Amino acid sequence: MNEKIKRHYQRINKSYTGAIHIAPSRIAKSLGQLYLYDKGLFFSSLSRISPNQLREVLLELDGDTFEVAIKRLPHAKILESIQNAQSDDATDIINRIELTDHSLASLLLHSLHPDMQDEHKELSAYEEDMAGAYMQTEILTATKKDTLRTVKDKIQKFRETEPLSSIIKLYIVDEGGVLLGSLHFTDLILFDDNDTIAYILETVRPRPPITIRAKSPVEEVVRLFSDYDLNAIGVVNRHGILKGHITYDDVFDLIQDLHTEQSYSMAGVNDDAEEQNTFKAGRARLVWLFVNLGTILLASFVIGIFEETIRQFVALAILMPVVAALGGNAGMQALTVTIRRLALGEIDYSSVKSVLLRELKIVILNGSAIALSIALISYLWFFNGTLSIIIAISMFCTLILAGVLGGLIPLILKKTGIDPAVASTVFLTTMIDSSGFLLFLGLADMFLV
Amino acid sequence: MNEKIKRHYQRINKSYTGAIHIAPSRIAKSLGQLYLYDKGLFFSSLSRISPNQLREVLLELDGDTFEVAIKRLPHAKILESIQNAQSDDATDIINRIELTDHSLASLLLHSLHPDMQDEHKELSAYEEDMAGAYMQTEILTATKKDTLRTVKDKIQKFRETEPLSSIIKLYIVDEGGVLLGSLHFTDLILFDDNDTIAYILETVRPRPPITIRAKSPVEEVVRLFSDYDLNAIGVVNRHGILKGHITYDDVFDLIQDLHTEQSYSMAGVNDDAEEQNTFKAGRARLVWLFVNLGTILLASFVIGIFEETIRQFVALAILMPVVAALGGNAGMQALTVTIRRLALGEIDYSSVKSVLLRELKIVILNGSAIALSIALISYLWFFNGTLSIIIAISMFCTLILAGVLGGLIPLILKKTGIDPAVASTVFLTTMIDSSGFLLFLGLADMFLV
Repeated sequence: MNEKIKRHYQRINKSYTGAIHIAPSRIAKSLGQLYLYDKGLFFSSLSRISPNQLREVLLELDGDTFEVAIKRLPHAKILESIQNAQSDDATDIINRIELTDHSLASLLLHSLHPDMQDEHKELSAYEEDMAGAYMQTEILTATKKDTLRTVKDKIQKFRETEPLSSIIKLYIVDEGGVLLGSLHFTDLILFDDNDTIAYILETVRPRPPITIRAKSPVEEVVRLFSDYDLNAIGVVNRHGILKGHITYDDVFDLIQDLHTEQSYSMAGVNDDAEEQNTFKAGRARLVWLFVNLGTILLASFVIGIFEETIRQFVALAILMPVVAALGGNAGMQALTVTIRRLALGEIDYSSVKSVLLRELKIVILNGSAIALSIALISYLWFFNGTLSIIIAISMFCTLILAGVLGGLIPLILKKTGIDPAVASTVFLTTMIDSSGFLLFLGLADMFLV
Repeated sequence: MNEKIKRHYQRINKSYTGAIHIAPSRIAKSLGQLYLYDKGLFFSSLSRISPNQLREVLLELDGDTFEVAIKRLPHAKILESIQNAQSDDATDIINRIELTDHSLASLLLHSLHPDMQDEHKELSAYEEDMAGAYMQTEILTATKKDTLRTVKDKIQKFRETEPLSSIIKLYIVDEGGVLLGSLHFTDLILFDDNDTIAYILETVRPRPPITIRAKSPVEEVVRLFSDYDLNAIGVVNRHGILKGHITYDDVFDLIQDLHTEQSYSMAGVNDDAEEQNTFKAGRARLVWLFVNLGTILLASFVIGIFEETIRQFVALAILMPVVAALGGNAGMQALTVTIRRLALGEIDYSSVKSVLLRELKIVILNGSAIALSIALISYLWFFNGTLSIIIAISMFCTLILAGVLGGLIPLILKKTGIDPAVASTVFLTTMIDSSGFLLFLGLADMFLV
C-alpha cells in the first residue's frame, strides 16, 4: 500500500474511531481517492462510516463515487442517515439518489416517517433557484406569552436533537405562526425567568426582522446576507407565516455554488452535469462545442468571401488571428468585469451609461497602444505601410467593439431575463470574430490588392 | 430631475432620516449613480450621511466615486467615522485612502488615539492574503475564574459598543490570553449566576475550538468555515494567544472577493486595480493584452512557416480558425472545471490521475463527435476528401491536447506555487493555438499540396 493511500485510509479510520473530528468533505475526498487507487479499501472504508457522518459524506462525494457508494451501501444504512439528517440535507440526499437510481429513491422515501415524507414533498416542490429549497424547517420559536423559563426548556430540548450551528436566534411568532421578530440569545441573558417574551421584546426593541419569501430567488438570499451581515434569515410564505430558516453555513455553500455556476456557464460547462457522472458531464460540454462550431463557421464564412484577396496576399492569413484573438481577449475582460459586478449587485441596467463610459475609456487607451504596436510589428515583418495602417485601424475598431459589447451584452441579457453568464460569451465571440475578419479583410480587399 | 435620480436621492434621504434601515452597499450604489448624473445632488447627499453610516458606505463606494468623496469630505468627518469603526474596517478605510491620498491617510492615522494607531499598525502588518488582515480585535472573552454574573456584565458592556453581528460566542482564555475554548450563548442560559466558567466548561464539555494562525492564508479561513460550518473563528499567534476573530460576515465577503479575483485573473483583469480609478484599471488590463499579443504572434509565426501552402490552398486559411477556436473552447472547459475544483479544495496535485482520466474520457468522446462533424462540413464545402481527413485528425488531436492541458496546467502551476487562475489561460491558449496550426497546416503541407 503506497504512502498516499495509507494516509487517506488512516484519515477515514481516525474519523471512524472518533479520535479526531474530520470534516465530511475531507472524508469524501479521501474516499474518492481510495475508490480510484484501491477499490477494496474503498468498500471497507465506506462500510465503516457511521450513519451519522454518512449523510454529510454522501453530500460531498463526487458524481462517480456517489453512484458506486449508493449501489453498494445497505439500504437500511442510507435510510438511517437520511432519517437523522436535517430537513434540507435529507431532501438533498434523496434528490441526488433520484438522479442515479429512481426506484431506490422512491423506496427510501416511502420508508420514511410520514411527517418526513411530507417535509420532503414540500421542500422538493421549490425549484433549485428558490430560497425555499435551501431552508431548514427545524427552528426554535416562541410566542409572546411564553416566559423565559418556558423558552429555556425549549432551548434545552432543541439542543438535544439539533446541532449548535442551527441554533442561531429565537424566532417570535404569533398563534397563527406569523413571524413577529427575533431575539439574539444575549438579549435573553439579562432577564428574569418569569419575564415574558412580550416584556423582553418591549425592553430590547430589536430591529424588525429581515425575511425572505420561500419563492424568492437564491441570489436575493445571498444579497440580503451580505448587505445586512445576517447569520440567519426567516423564510416566510405570502401570509408571513414562518416556514423555516436559511443559515449562514448554507449561504457559504450557496455563494460557492453560484460562483461555480457562473464560471462554468461562461466556459460552457454545466455545473449540475459535472456533479453527475463523466458521461453526462461530457455530453453537456459537447452541446457548447457544437454551439461554438456554429459561430466559428460564421467567421470562416466571412473569411471565405475574401478567398481571392488572401491568395494574392497571404500575409493577411498570418495576421488575421491576431485581430480576432486580441479582440476576444479585450472583450472577455470587459465581459468578465460586467458579469461579476452584475452578480455582486454593484450594477444593473440603470448603470449602463457609467459601465459603457468606463469600458470605452479603457478600450480607447488600450486600443491605441495595441494598434500602434501591431502596426509597428507588422511593418517590421512585411515592410508594407498600407498593410500596417489597415491592421492598426481594424485592430483599433475591433477593440472598441469588444469593449462596448463586453459591457453591453451582459446588461441587455440580464434585462431581458437571460442569465448573462450562459449566453454572453457566444454572442461576444461571434460578433468580434466575424466583424474583426470582415473589417480587416474588407479593408485589405479595398486598399491592398 | 428624472425619475431614476429622484429614486436614488430619496433612498439616501430615507436612510439619513433613519426612516428605514438601508444597507450601506445600496447607499453607495445610489451615490455612484448621483455622481454620474447630478454632481450637485451627489455632494449634498454625501455631506448628509452620518459618520456612523459613512464608514460602511465608504468601504462600498467604487474607485472613482471614492476618490472624489475623500477629496470633498471634511477631514474631521472621515476621522470620526474611522474612530467609530471596528478595527478591521478602520484599517480597510485608511488603507484605501492611502492608495489615493497618501498624506491624508497619514494625517488621519496620526489623529487617531494611540491605541488605534497601534492596532492599525498591527493589522496593516498582515499581507492582504493572510487571515490576520481580516480579523476584528474586539472580542468577548472570559477566564475560567469568572462567574456567570461577571460574564453577563461583560456582555452588557460589550453590547453597548459593538454590533450584535460580532457577538457570536464567548471565548475562554487563560491569564496569559491563550485561547482555551469557546461557549455558545445557549450554553450559558441554563446555569446559575454564581456558577464559574470553569464549572460550566466541565458540564457542557464543548468541542476543542478550531482556530487559525494570523499568518495563515485566507483560503484556509474560507475552507475551515465551509468544512466545519463555523460562524466565527479565533485567530491566534504562534503561542496560542487569542488576537481577534474572523466572523461569518467577513467570510461572505472573502468568498466573493476570492471568486472575483479568480474570475478576473482568468480573464486578465486585476481586481485591486479595478477598484481604483479607470486609468489604473485600464493599465492593468493592457499588460494582459500585450502578453496575449506575444502569444498570438507565436501562432502567427507558425502560420508564416506555411505561407506557400496557404497560397496554393486558401481553404486552409478558411478552416484554420475552426481548429484554434474549438481547441480553445474545449481547453477552457477543462481549465475552468479544474481551477474551480482546486479552489474549492475538492482536488489537489495528488488527484492528477483522476482529473486527467476524467478529462481525457470527456475529450475523446467529444473530440470524435466534433472531428466527424467538421470533416463532414468541410467535405460539403470544399469537396476534398484529403482535406476532410486532415482537418478531422488535427481537430481530434488538438481537442485531446486541450483536455489534457486544461486539466494538467492548473495542477502543475498550483504545485509550483503559482496562482493557476493568473497564468493558466496564457499557457493554454499559446500551446493550443500554436500546435493546432502546426498540426493542421503541417499535415496539409505533407499530404495536400
